Amino acid sequence: MTTPEINTWQGVQEEVRRRITQRVWRPGEFIPHEADLAAEFGCARATVNRALRELAEAGLLDRRRRAGTRVAVNPVRKAQLEIPVIREEIVAKGQAYGHRVLSREMPVPPAEVAARMQVAPGRKLLHLRTLHTADGAPYVYENRWINPEAVPAVLAEDFSAISPNEWLVREVPFEGGDFTFSALSAGGAEAEVLSCPAGTGLFVLDRTTWTGAGMITSVRLVFHPGYRMHTRL
Amino acid sequence: MTTPEINTWQGVQEEVRRRITQRVWRPGEFIPHEADLAAEFGCARATVNRALRELAEAGLLDRRRRAGTRVAVNPVRKAQLEIPVIREEIVAKGQAYGHRVLSREMPVPPAEVAARMQVAPGRKLLHLRTLHTADGAPYVYENRWINPEAVPAVLAEDFSAISPNEWLVREVPFEGGDFTFSALSAGGAEAEVLSCPAGTGLFVLDRTTWTGAGMITSVRLVFHPGYRMHTRL
Repeated sequence: MTTPEINTWQGVQEEVRRRITQRVWRPGEFIPHEADLAAEFGCARATVNRALRELAEAGLLDRRRRAGTRVAVNPVRKAQLEIPVIREEIVAKGQAYGHRVLSREMPVPPAEVAARMQVAPGRKLLHLRTLHTADGAPYVYENRWINPEAVPAVLAEDFSAISPNEWLVREVPFEGGDFTFSALSAGGAEAEVLSCPAGTGLFVLDRTTWTGAGMITSVRLVFHPGYRMHTRL
Repeated sequence: MTTPEINTWQGVQEEVRRRITQRVWRPGEFIPHEADLAAEFGCARATVNRALRELAEAGLLDRRRRAGTRVAVNPVRKAQLEIPVIREEIVAKGQAYGHRVLSREMPVPPAEVAARMQVAPGRKLLHLRTLHTADGAPYVYENRWINPEAVPAVLAEDFSAISPNEWLVREVPFEGGDFTFSALSAGGAEAEVLSCPAGTGLFVLDRTTWTGAGMITSVRLVFHPGYRMHTRL
């Protein structure tokens, strides 16, 4: 088989992608060495490297330092997942944003929260319950814990002018996060706060974020009935 | 201010990350040019470039070709989001996997499905309803449409030995996907298939995937009560 000369990394990428999607190279198979591909395409080895690196980042190839490069069996793609400012999300829909702090306390958290926040048993955390509204209607109910040792400035905030969500996004750059998506059947508290019938199925996002210095915040967001969260690969 | 010499891209990255997280450089601010940073750190400009590229990919920096590099205002992180083989997910939990095709038909789809699959009105699609089980208990109910013009081999499959989910992951390399997360209150069909009381809150994933050649499949996955989907930044 002869291949027309390919001089750009984009050209190499396109050809390699074609071989993967048309199953010339099948999932789990080793692909030829970079040097052999460079010879076949009549290009520099660095060009092949650049093309393969991007395909590996996109999840189509599986590269192991010593073992070589295989076609990925289960392509893992990276999707954009952001921590949005809820106010901006609502304003972008052309709706009027509001928020109301329902409670602000400094209790010893339940053991399960202390474990998730990695604080010693008996240590107090800031506990905030907030309702975000869109055109006056409940949008998302936020049940949040914050470690004031990680974020001392939080103690001076009453969150009347800015929501805890927006304040944290603006003030505290997180370095990592843990996301869990699930659903619940609205019980007494959520049903009341979100003004929906008990038993309504609600989408739930649990999120814990940290910096190198430790856990910052752990939040449960319970969205209004019918909410849909969208992302793309 | 003097900075100790930094010779590796990892070192530059660490220092730049420190300046962002400690707000030496604040969100939205332009950071110095690569050449200036290279001079400050006493390293090659390529070293700075490598470090900044990775921080931009991680969402901490916002790079524009002509405008320069700013500290990101809303860090957008990329999370791993994969299309799993449900059998493997269940087996990994140490449970026995099973699947059952509940129906297999070739109707004209509802207009909303035809639009999502980008097929002309009146065109027939393969419609499969499948239940996946873990240790015999309902795990996820899959309601799927497949375009046989994009995947002709699907017409020869009865999916008794392999689920449509696993067959598609193995046989058809997708190139893009659209994900929507939500919740529903179990109605008659889901409640019956998943053996849960009507009104139970259930987590729902709607997913449409395509190749360069067009839409392949659109599926709604309705998970058993209590299911949690986890990912990490």
